Amino acid sequence: MQAQIKNAAVQNKRKIVNDPVWGFINIPTAFHYDLMQHPYFQRLNRIKQMGLAYLVYPGAQHTRLQHSLGAMFLTNEAVKQIRSQGHEITEEEADAVLAAILLHDIGHAPFSHTLENALTTGIRHEEISIMMMRQINREMGGRLDLALQIFQNQYHKKFLHQLLSGQLDMDRLDYLSRDSFFSGVIEGNIGSARIIKMLDVRNDNLVVEAKGIYSIEQFLIARRLMYWQVYLHKTAFAAEKMLNKIVARAKELAANGVELFASPALRFFLYNNVTKNRIENAPEVLRNYAMLDDSDLISAIKVWISHPDTVLSVLSKCFTDRQLFKIKITETPISEEQIESDLQRYSQKYNISKDEARYFISEDIVSSDFYRAEDENINILYNDGCIRDICEASDLLDMSALSKTVEKHYYCYLR
Amino acid sequence: MQAQIKNAAVQNKRKIVNDPVWGFINIPTAFHYDLMQHPYFQRLNRIKQMGLAYLVYPGAQHTRLQHSLGAMFLTNEAVKQIRSQGHEITEEEADAVLAAILLHDIGHAPFSHTLENALTTGIRHEEISIMMMRQINREMGGRLDLALQIFQNQYHKKFLHQLLSGQLDMDRLDYLSRDSFFSGVIEGNIGSARIIKMLDVRNDNLVVEAKGIYSIEQFLIARRLMYWQVYLHKTAFAAEKMLNKIVARAKELAANGVELFASPALRFFLYNNVTKNRIENAPEVLRNYAMLDDSDLISAIKVWISHPDTVLSVLSKCFTDRQLFKIKITETPISEEQIESDLQRYSQKYNISKDEARYFISEDIVSSDFYRAEDENINILYNDGCIRDICEASDLLDMSALSKTVEKHYYCYLR
Amino acid sequence: MQAQIKNAAVQNKRKIVNDPVWGFINIPTAFHYDLMQHPYFQRLNRIKQMGLAYLVYPGAQHTRLQHSLGAMFLTNEAVKQIRSQGHEITEEEADAVLAAILLHDIGHAPFSHTLENALTTGIRHEEISIMMMRQINREMGGRLDLALQIFQNQYHKKFLHQLLSGQLDMDRLDYLSRDSFFSGVIEGNIGSARIIKMLDVRNDNLVVEAKGIYSIEQFLIARRLMYWQVYLHKTAFAAEKMLNKIVARAKELAANGVELFASPALRFFLYNNVTKNRIENAPEVLRNYAMLDDSDLISAIKVWISHPDTVLSVLSKCFTDRQLFKIKITETPISEEQIESDLQRYSQKYNISKDEARYFISEDIVSSDFYRAEDENINILYNDGCIRDICEASDLLDMSALSKTVEKHYYCYLR
Amino acid sequence: MQAQIKNAAVQNKRKIVNDPVWGFINIPTAFHYDLMQHPYFQRLNRIKQMGLAYLVYPGAQHTRLQHSLGAMFLTNEAVKQIRSQGHEITEEEADAVLAAILLHDIGHAPFSHTLENALTTGIRHEEISIMMMRQINREMGGRLDLALQIFQNQYHKKFLHQLLSGQLDMDRLDYLSRDSFFSGVIEGNIGSARIIKMLDVRNDNLVVEAKGIYSIEQFLIARRLMYWQVYLHKTAFAAEKMLNKIVARAKELAANGVELFASPALRFFLYNNVTKNRIENAPEVLRNYAMLDDSDLISAIKVWISHPDTVLSVLSKCFTDRQLFKIKITETPISEEQIESDLQRYSQKYNISKDEARYFISEDIVSSDFYRAEDENINILYNDGCIRDICEASDLLDMSALSKTVEKHYYCYLR
Repeated sequence: MQAQIKNAAVQNKRKIVNDPVWGFINIPTAFHYDLMQHPYFQRLNRIKQMGLAYLVYPGAQHTRLQHSLGAMFLTNEAVKQIRSQGHEITEEEADAVLAAILLHDIGHAPFSHTLENALTTGIRHEEISIMMMRQINREMGGRLDLALQIFQNQYHKKFLHQLLSGQLDMDRLDYLSRDSFFSGVIEGNIGSARIIKMLDVRNDNLVVEAKGIYSIEQFLIARRLMYWQVYLHKTAFAAEKMLNKIVARAKELAANGVELFASPALRFFLYNNVTKNRIENAPEVLRNYAMLDDSDLISAIKVWISHPDTVLSVLSKCFTDRQLFKIKITETPISEEQIESDLQRYSQKYNISKDEARYFISEDIVSSDFYRAEDENINILYNDGCIRDICEASDLLDMSALSKTVEKHYYCYLR
Repeated sequence: MQAQIKNAAVQNKRKIVNDPVWGFINIPTAFHYDLMQHPYFQRLNRIKQMGLAYLVYPGAQHTRLQHSLGAMFLTNEAVKQIRSQGHEITEEEADAVLAAILLHDIGHAPFSHTLENALTTGIRHEEISIMMMRQINREMGGRLDLALQIFQNQYHKKFLHQLLSGQLDMDRLDYLSRDSFFSGVIEGNIGSARIIKMLDVRNDNLVVEAKGIYSIEQFLIARRLMYWQVYLHKTAFAAEKMLNKIVARAKELAANGVELFASPALRFFLYNNVTKNRIENAPEVLRNYAMLDDSDLISAIKVWISHPDTVLSVLSKCFTDRQLFKIKITETPISEEQIESDLQRYSQKYNISKDEARYFISEDIVSSDFYRAEDENINILYNDGCIRDICEASDLLDMSALSKTVEKHYYCYLR
Repeated sequence: MQAQIKNAAVQNKRKIVNDPVWGFINIPTAFHYDLMQHPYFQRLNRIKQMGLAYLVYPGAQHTRLQHSLGAMFLTNEAVKQIRSQGHEITEEEADAVLAAILLHDIGHAPFSHTLENALTTGIRHEEISIMMMRQINREMGGRLDLALQIFQNQYHKKFLHQLLSGQLDMDRLDYLSRDSFFSGVIEGNIGSARIIKMLDVRNDNLVVEAKGIYSIEQFLIARRLMYWQVYLHKTAFAAEKMLNKIVARAKELAANGVELFASPALRFFLYNNVTKNRIENAPEVLRNYAMLDDSDLISAIKVWISHPDTVLSVLSKCFTDRQLFKIKITETPISEEQIESDLQRYSQKYNISKDEARYFISEDIVSSDFYRAEDENINILYNDGCIRDICEASDLLDMSALSKTVEKHYYCYLR
Repeated sequence: MQAQIKNAAVQNKRKIVNDPVWGFINIPTAFHYDLMQHPYFQRLNRIKQMGLAYLVYPGAQHTRLQHSLGAMFLTNEAVKQIRSQGHEITEEEADAVLAAILLHDIGHAPFSHTLENALTTGIRHEEISIMMMRQINREMGGRLDLALQIFQNQYHKKFLHQLLSGQLDMDRLDYLSRDSFFSGVIEGNIGSARIIKMLDVRNDNLVVEAKGIYSIEQFLIARRLMYWQVYLHKTAFAAEKMLNKIVARAKELAANGVELFASPALRFFLYNNVTKNRIENAPEVLRNYAMLDDSDLISAIKVWISHPDTVLSVLSKCFTDRQLFKIKITETPISEEQIESDLQRYSQKYNISKDEARYFISEDIVSSDFYRAEDENINILYNDGCIRDICEASDLLDMSALSKTVEKHYYCYLR
């Protein structure tokens, strides 16, 4: 039966995607092909993987859709590898884990992480992914039952979930390679293929053969490099803060009944306060969410340049023309005097209140916690069968430092 | 004076861009940096280089902004090469030609070539580029005078114009390499660096040393490959036709006074018939054009899914969910019977008139004229000093075939 | 049984090779692993794939061993593709064709094609490959029977042989990609993966789907580019001529009983005239051949710098220090007067006879016949089932030109 | 004058080399072109950069010549960068530092580091490089005076020497990128271009801007990865030990007056004990050294397979056919009992003494000291002008661990 379905895919449907990162990606079955055709999945092609990083790294325009395909490709490779080590993964399990990785990001907001808490309140994108997967599951008559179990770590084979989410999951292996490729930060590349070739399973946990320890160290360092050099690049960070300020101002104006140009989907999230409770109980929330992507923001913000509200107008103009916030990164918080002086200046220059002027600055503490000990570990398997976490296994990395939350104070302000 | 300006760039402004294709790109002077900061230029970062090709090649999300930077980089290399062959290019000329290539694409419509004749009537994007360059020139007090002369081929050194526009210009060298890189069609890559190293000038014309003849042949073939494999890929082509049908239907509805959701800029072009005459005499046309990019279309089309007009609604839904037109490519036109039968079917299924059903099909003749003899030539320079066009110089390529307009009949229809 | 053998490979033997061109290459079975361990195969790691091209392209140091592994990798991909199109290839056939491609080059002389007719007389390297495969087959108790049948085109499924040898075989797909990669002539790269994805079989012949026609054209052009730009690069060509002159002089001296430093294997071929008849009847010929590689030549020539024979000494010194022949490429043969004058000059300068001076020049006609109509075709399969040769199918390539033997006159002479 | 010389290079000599790693490399002047033509430099094209690593990574066939060109390219980029930061480097100094990096490796023995102490006694390759540079300097009438001063750190601008030799020199930046490229271990790649763009000079020391700290960490980790994954890969290590045993046995036989096949240059080092004192006082030592390269070893060892000495014959056969030593890596030394048992076994199997059997095993402690605090530092320059070593600057790397000598016990033995 399964074979027939697969055969149908081979016969009738385009089954190969050209990926500049991994080469040709085969769509494994008609089932996965159908998932890719779902509007929820196609939406990912309108959401940039790296948010606003393209304002610094102009190559970084790639989308969540490509990343999802790439992660599926790597998961497929991992499944083959684990099977070759003598562990059983049934066809059904393989199909489910591939479906789960394909859909793991469908709950992302526009610009991925950038607006995660701006349009909704208190909801993580993984939770929305699950809601959307459940919706697809209903439409497909339960075909995603097992995928959902694995995704939510409710399936008895835990290592399948670890392929999707953990310190060394296929999600990360794909996005680090891919983001390095498209940003042009070549030294952020990692040995995904080599790491996968050293995967194994012990006690239902993913492990990496001991000879792979250097690749794992390199992976952790490359990830850190990408965080500071790319994901938290100060100009991209300033852009994200500016976008958040724009959305916040728009929501405030909306709350006050001010009319704003927006697509209906964007309007829904501007004029409603969407909390976790609400999203679960009102189908129109998800319906609107599914219609929202990067374009709604970009297009509306350009219109807001002409809005009578000075704050919204100034920020929208600056954002559109890439006159981003300036940014200072310091080890201690910026002084109250500095802030006061800036607010004063903006207040006078733009004839706005000091409260309104607060939209022209943004203070934040950036903490990067790249490797949390309490989280999943990266298990290293030695020839004698013993297993140690990379923290102990590595004589080089000061993992207490790596797991220590590094904090930097970012102060963004209108130029 | 010039040196001071350059020095200022070095001291005060970000002057390097990370490009995954060419590596680090230096912004040559503060003048070019300022051009890059102009809203007209920043807009290019919201227009995809390859239109809708990302629906087939998901990596092809790169924008006109990156391409413009890349073309500037190559032009800079070409300037160095030509100088090293003993030909004078003054600093002023170099600055102007680099400015011109940087701005050569600012007149593009959303999705680049896709909508070239959909939103406006009878205007080529190069003409709009010139209008926009003139506008910037006014703002910058004439700093672009020479760049405009070169761009319009009014400068006495013709070879400078040929770097911008001709059979072997830096525009093409960049876009072929870049589109190959991002689409993953690696065999479309060309030897840009090698070709540039063989450039010279004779009688005020760009020439290529004879030993470069094989690279030129490979360039012409790769270009042809990219056309048929990528630019005119049937699925991407079907997507473009669908988008054009959507815009045409929206404009028809607009002409009939039907209300449509749209950003003001998009609205302007839907509800007005913008001809060449009009664009030259009404500054608000250019103002609206400059506010228009991919996002306005993507965002509006999603909204149109809920529009009461069946034609607009069906097309918008299909486009957004990537249920693109099916396509047949034939050597002769599709039969009238076939068309009639399809129209009949759509008419019944959707309860629309047959005239309206015409929005669900699209017939076209695709002719690719890659190397027009009447156009600029590619001149090959032999050791004995004689110059021949590649048509004669190549014993392999049947240039009459290459220059012959190949015609294919494309018939697109709703599935 | 087969499964057990494969399992053994998985358990006990290194089964992955890191290839910078194709990534990780899996050794399919223990059988192929054993073939790779054979001294005949290991010898290929001491023979440069591109002969003396490294004197022009310093990256081109890669060996026949890497190429053989790469060609095996591609053949494995092709087997998967052809099976996915519904054609049967049994496990036994797959193992055999992979064994055959792995061993197809073991008969190469040092520096690959460079010395093909210098050390032996009238024997093609394919013939020696067969002799060596037969020898391995005897040692392995007939395990190579089927591989030998396929290699010699004696097996009833002709398309398996075409994977090894034909206009579009896996040998060529690998070496063009590989030589492009290592030489740095990036525009010589081809779409091997795409071409393989479009392979099919009709009437026991390999065919390529019609949509692959542009990739095939690009493949033919890239191949031509690599010939003229790399394989027949004039400096590399001059080096090859010089090496051939050195060997010829050494053989002449040997024939006259002059003592020469040489490893025993090299000595065997200098002091004996090895013809096809002889190689088949004297096992010591093959034994010596198997001990011979690039190092014997390089090492001996350095010693010959101090040889009393002026001709040998001068040539050896020039070769070792990369003072290669100068070269003139013309459309007509060089004049007798020019030659006479050069011989006169060398004769006086080095106090040698004019006959001896002939070792300081080399005349040759280089004819490149890249696509011979009488050879295997490249068959293009159309959707309607009809098959046409690329010559007819391509409207671009002037195949009569491509198949026409282009002749150039090369005149090399000591500087 | 200088300009004239450079112009001559442009006019008359091949001035571009195609490098698959860095693209086109321009030879800066005729002076450097002449250095490249010297036999000492050309010899580097016969010495593999990575010794015997090609026995594990078949792509790693690249030579010291390519590396030297690549390092020159990067040094040229660094010179431009440092000048752009306002520091003077005169034309004469630039030419000298480029000459020095071009020649920095000419003193390498065959197989680079592999045989560093096998053929000579107590001499580092850098010392031989200096002797050879002095010889070239004499031939060129003192043109290398300044290059020699910089190379030996006797020039007053210390930072020029640091470009050649230090924790972050251009030598390392090239070889890590290059070895990663050719071996296929892509995750060993580093951001050479980015690091160079962040170089500056303070107090006559090379410094790196603080924002480059993550790239420096990645560089250190990638270097460590390359050491354990590639340079000290256990199979490559076993091959090196085997080669050293072969040379040691050959030297012992030579010392006992046994006749061995060898080229005169190799013979010289087998039959003479070349110490530092001797090499400085006998010109024939350098003359022979300059004639010695990989090919002499490879060629001779094949001949030694037939030598009557069992030890030499067995090792030579195993080496040639890649039947390398097996290897055990342990944290404590291998037990005496194990060694005794192995020696006993070899002694009986091959009918040799236990002393002779010692050639079939090799014990070693591998200590990798990647970042020695007492050595040159990597200085990080902060915005406030203060400078800190990367040891202090990095909050991640446990530099005490990184600088700590890691020791592993390697035990190699004949299979």
